[in-house]
Amino acid sequence: MDRGCFITFEGIDGCGKSTQIGLLTGYLEERGIDYLLLREPGGTVIGENIRTILLDKKNSGMTDMTELLLFEAARAQIVSEVIRPAVESGKVVICDRFFDSTAAYQGYAKNMGQDVVETLNQLATGGFYPDITFLLDITPEQAMERRAARGEEDRIEKLGMEFQKKVRDGYLAIASESSRIVKIDGARTPEDTFSEILGYLEEMI
Amino acid sequence: MDRGCFITFEGIDGCGKSTQIGLLTGYLEERGIDYLLLREPGGTVIGENIRTILLDKKNSGMTDMTELLLFEAARAQIVSEVIRPAVESGKVVICDRFFDSTAAYQGYAKNMGQDVVETLNQLATGGFYPDITFLLDITPEQAMERRAARGEEDRIEKLGMEFQKKVRDGYLAIASESSRIVKIDGARTPEDTFSEILGYLEEMI
Repeated sequence: MDRGCFITFEGIDGCGKSTQIGLLTGYLEERGIDYLLLREPGGTVIGENIRTILLDKKNSGMTDMTELLLFEAARAQIVSEVIRPAVESGKVVICDRFFDSTAAYQGYAKNMGQDVVETLNQLATGGFYPDITFLLDITPEQAMERRAARGEEDRIEKLGMEFQKKVRDGYLAIASESSRIVKIDGARTPEDTFSEILGYLEEMI
Repeated sequence: MDRGCFITFEGIDGCGKSTQIGLLTGYLEERGIDYLLLREPGGTVIGENIRTILLDKKNSGMTDMTELLLFEAARAQIVSEVIRPAVESGKVVICDRFFDSTAAYQGYAKNMGQDVVETLNQLATGGFYPDITFLLDITPEQAMERRAARGEEDRIEKLGMEFQKKVRDGYLAIASESSRIVKIDGARTPEDTFSEILGYLEEMI
């Protein structure tokens, strides 16, 4: 059986990932293409348990290193249990956030160091990387407007505007160093944004 | 205020750690010495949540890397939140298992590699290491007899005799390379074993 493909979506909170992923899954369903939609952290029973710890507001005393290691633990599980087997069996796997989130949030915005994050990303994935990554780029100001409309924010999202700016800068730095990552202007209409994404994907799926 | 000290106990399941720790805490209580007894993984709210995931029999599909990263996540939290502040404020901190367990179980017995484990141990502890570590050494056969008397075994303990032998070999290898680790013959009476341990500690506490 042909190998499938592994697509990830990245960007600051409120960048429009969910909307674009919804448009993509609709597109795949219309064409009868077998896909799997996952979110990080989570996507496995073990990973969802880890996600609960990460997002619990009672755990605000969590150290940055603990947070990083929990993300990587969930990642190791989802890659081994779900992503790699699905891609190898021919499926399109779409992941809402993957290890570039860790590089942007923990490595850049929290100053934990790119070398530390890269070491852990490598250990957790065993070298199984996305085929293509869409970075939906918008300004933190635009993202904040979108997020406010959603209601209550979680622990990670509460860190504010300066932090979101650092995350965005981190994403842009990572994207500039990797041909795997495609930067997409996320400030346009959902349809325009999706049209550009589809241009990259039509050859792959 | 004077720095306290950080004491860890290691050994295969059933080696007598709990008994020796009980004797030590009794000794400290009699003398009014302030101590803190912790267990790994756990010892913090976040760590106990992680421990629940690690020991849950439903999670038998956990990958070795996920397990390792979860142990290290709990470790990062307990070192930063509890161990380091307590030792720095003058307390005796006793830990039932610490990072040598990871080296013996994951690094040696599960063949994940000492370099990987050392990297993660360093990241999780930030270089805050025990002052002294007691390795209670007994054979897996002796340990099995002790464990059977305890009733139901957890997921990690179910891995069997060959595994316990590898863990013991791992511990002995680690101990041979570190002056921090004191190998204690754990096959004697609890009183004889404790007497030897106390000989090492009387100067420290």
